[in-house]
Amino acid sequence: MSAYDERRKKLYEWMVNERIAMVMFEDTEGRRDPAIRWMTGQPSDALLFLSAEGKSLLVPWDANMAAVYAQADVVIPYGEFERRSVKALQGAAALFKIPLGSRVEIPPVTSYTNFLKYVGDAGEYDILCRNSGTHGEAESLRAIKDEEEQEIYRKAGGITNEIIDLLENNITAGRIPTEIDVVLFIEAECRKRGCEGTGFETLAAGAGRSFGIHAFPAYTAEPFAGPGLSILDFGLKYRGYTTDVTLSFAKAPLSPAQEKMLSLTEKAYEKALSMVKDGVYTREISLAADAIFGKARKAMPHALGHGIGLEAHEAPYLRSRQDNTWQLRPGMVFTLEPGLYDPVHGGCRLENDILLTESGPELLTKARIIRF
Amino acid sequence: MSAYDERRKKLYEWMVNERIAMVMFEDTEGRRDPAIRWMTGQPSDALLFLSAEGKSLLVPWDANMAAVYAQADVVIPYGEFERRSVKALQGAAALFKIPLGSRVEIPPVTSYTNFLKYVGDAGEYDILCRNSGTHGEAESLRAIKDEEEQEIYRKAGGITNEIIDLLENNITAGRIPTEIDVVLFIEAECRKRGCEGTGFETLAAGAGRSFGIHAFPAYTAEPFAGPGLSILDFGLKYRGYTTDVTLSFAKAPLSPAQEKMLSLTEKAYEKALSMVKDGVYTREISLAADAIFGKARKAMPHALGHGIGLEAHEAPYLRSRQDNTWQLRPGMVFTLEPGLYDPVHGGCRLENDILLTESGPELLTKARIIRF
Repeated sequence: MSAYDERRKKLYEWMVNERIAMVMFEDTEGRRDPAIRWMTGQPSDALLFLSAEGKSLLVPWDANMAAVYAQADVVIPYGEFERRSVKALQGAAALFKIPLGSRVEIPPVTSYTNFLKYVGDAGEYDILCRNSGTHGEAESLRAIKDEEEQEIYRKAGGITNEIIDLLENNITAGRIPTEIDVVLFIEAECRKRGCEGTGFETLAAGAGRSFGIHAFPAYTAEPFAGPGLSILDFGLKYRGYTTDVTLSFAKAPLSPAQEKMLSLTEKAYEKALSMVKDGVYTREISLAADAIFGKARKAMPHALGHGIGLEAHEAPYLRSRQDNTWQLRPGMVFTLEPGLYDPVHGGCRLENDILLTESGPELLTKARIIRF
Repeated sequence: MSAYDERRKKLYEWMVNERIAMVMFEDTEGRRDPAIRWMTGQPSDALLFLSAEGKSLLVPWDANMAAVYAQADVVIPYGEFERRSVKALQGAAALFKIPLGSRVEIPPVTSYTNFLKYVGDAGEYDILCRNSGTHGEAESLRAIKDEEEQEIYRKAGGITNEIIDLLENNITAGRIPTEIDVVLFIEAECRKRGCEGTGFETLAAGAGRSFGIHAFPAYTAEPFAGPGLSILDFGLKYRGYTTDVTLSFAKAPLSPAQEKMLSLTEKAYEKALSMVKDGVYTREISLAADAIFGKARKAMPHALGHGIGLEAHEAPYLRSRQDNTWQLRPGMVFTLEPGLYDPVHGGCRLENDILLTESGPELLTKARIIRF
């Protein structure tokens, strides 16, 4: 039984318990859902239907790609349904012999306007659109990486660390002088090592631009790592899974305010890492990091961290909002990324990827603040 | 009056006519809407509220970025609303003194599940969520590029053409041997020329991989432009606006089947271009291209083209579906991109960007099929 089969099997069981006869997943521009890749291997652009009786139908935009990558019981190109998701849903229900009136679940991100269309055009089924339904279950299952995924992450982390070392050596020696040089260096080095590419647009913000949480544009032809604080945030995508790290380069001379920002960021990071264990509420970790900044009358303008996987941001989430009820569990892979930003002094962030195992946190990556 | 002011003014007028007291735009991960950049200059990650009385409130995630880029009457960071869109909506309504019970419009892509929250938590207003509301009007307005945008596109097209020429010279001479070399060459050359970057992930598919509409991965360390058909699909982002072109490289020896695919693609392209004029229905153009392929018992597995602008795919759409009612109008900028794909022979596509002016089509880019 392949990993894809095992992942689908968990959802079939959940569907039976919840009396869901069929579920539709959708992965398309504007509504990406890597659950389809997770359950079939199809990299993108498809619908996936699962029946509670344990059958799967993949409806890819590109049948040639599906023939190479995808595993599903049945594959029917989207064109055969006039590229209309409602028609595909009806076709899947006919294929699976879903009884009229059965509960059929569609993605919770379905727009209100599209929801009305499904209910209008496929009213012969009981259409469900819920945050805590089968899609939420898939998201929760994806948050716990299985053994195959954990091995992928150890490999991805190793490649990320090789590149971190190369970056430190070459940047501090002045051999990669501009933001764009840094970004293209990462692109080239990661693909040489078998990565699919970067997991998101690399952010390389030299000292003049590091005040932004997400510098805009993400990189330019300006110098990188001149005097002051520079931020480099990147991730490598390996077999679909992305790492996500941030290095800060702190080139002398630094002002006392800049030194203070760096030491606070490191302190918040160490505090957060020390709290990582099975069962802890991520909100507690996030509040502890906030408290360190708060004592110094500073504030972090973003969340402490987030899960990573087939998406650059996925469950679990590590943030201070009251509605955050996530707890860490063995198998979770997530970032810790405290940072501070100031329009005058610039910004700094330190971000690494952690796999929580049965025996504690395993640091997958070795990003750091590089003073030189 | 800045271009941003003029664009907002058009929407204020529309809102008054439609009796919409306030509208909310949202640009966030998973729900990108460049209408906010179009109306304020804020590059990304914000909410924008407009009142029918002609006032604007921008709610950016990153206040530092907004201070540099954005123009709006009032700017309040998202954090002040606990990073909750419903709270921001209520705050905006209070600021604008929107009477209770007024019509307040939220984005049509709002999920069904979120829609229920707005109606539950902000039930003091009449919450509208419609495809043909203010957001649809903004999309239609954005499809007609104003003079400032047309000048940006002429410049962006010029840079794209410089890079096309460099690519042809260097690739046919064997100086850019692999897919990744091609992609990094484009990244470096476009940023040198002042571009923000590429408009989407460049697709470079050598002869072994060009059968896919969207090759996966988008590029690898494999050779590019070896014997057979290779596809290079890229766009340059200049001041927010993206071009979108596809070159095909056809290196001898070619089979008769490959020659036929190339000549059919060029024929479909020329036919489509000849039909571009004010008032024509884009569906007619698309059906004419389909007919050329159909006569040869082939089929194009994607649409003929699409508008470009702050998004890589936006209105107008050029496709054969019966529900396509788009007509070309002066000021529209769009692609024509016929192509054919075969698991054995590989794929080819020819794509250029056209600005329709009062005096006819203006070819912004000069991509071509390069035989060598």
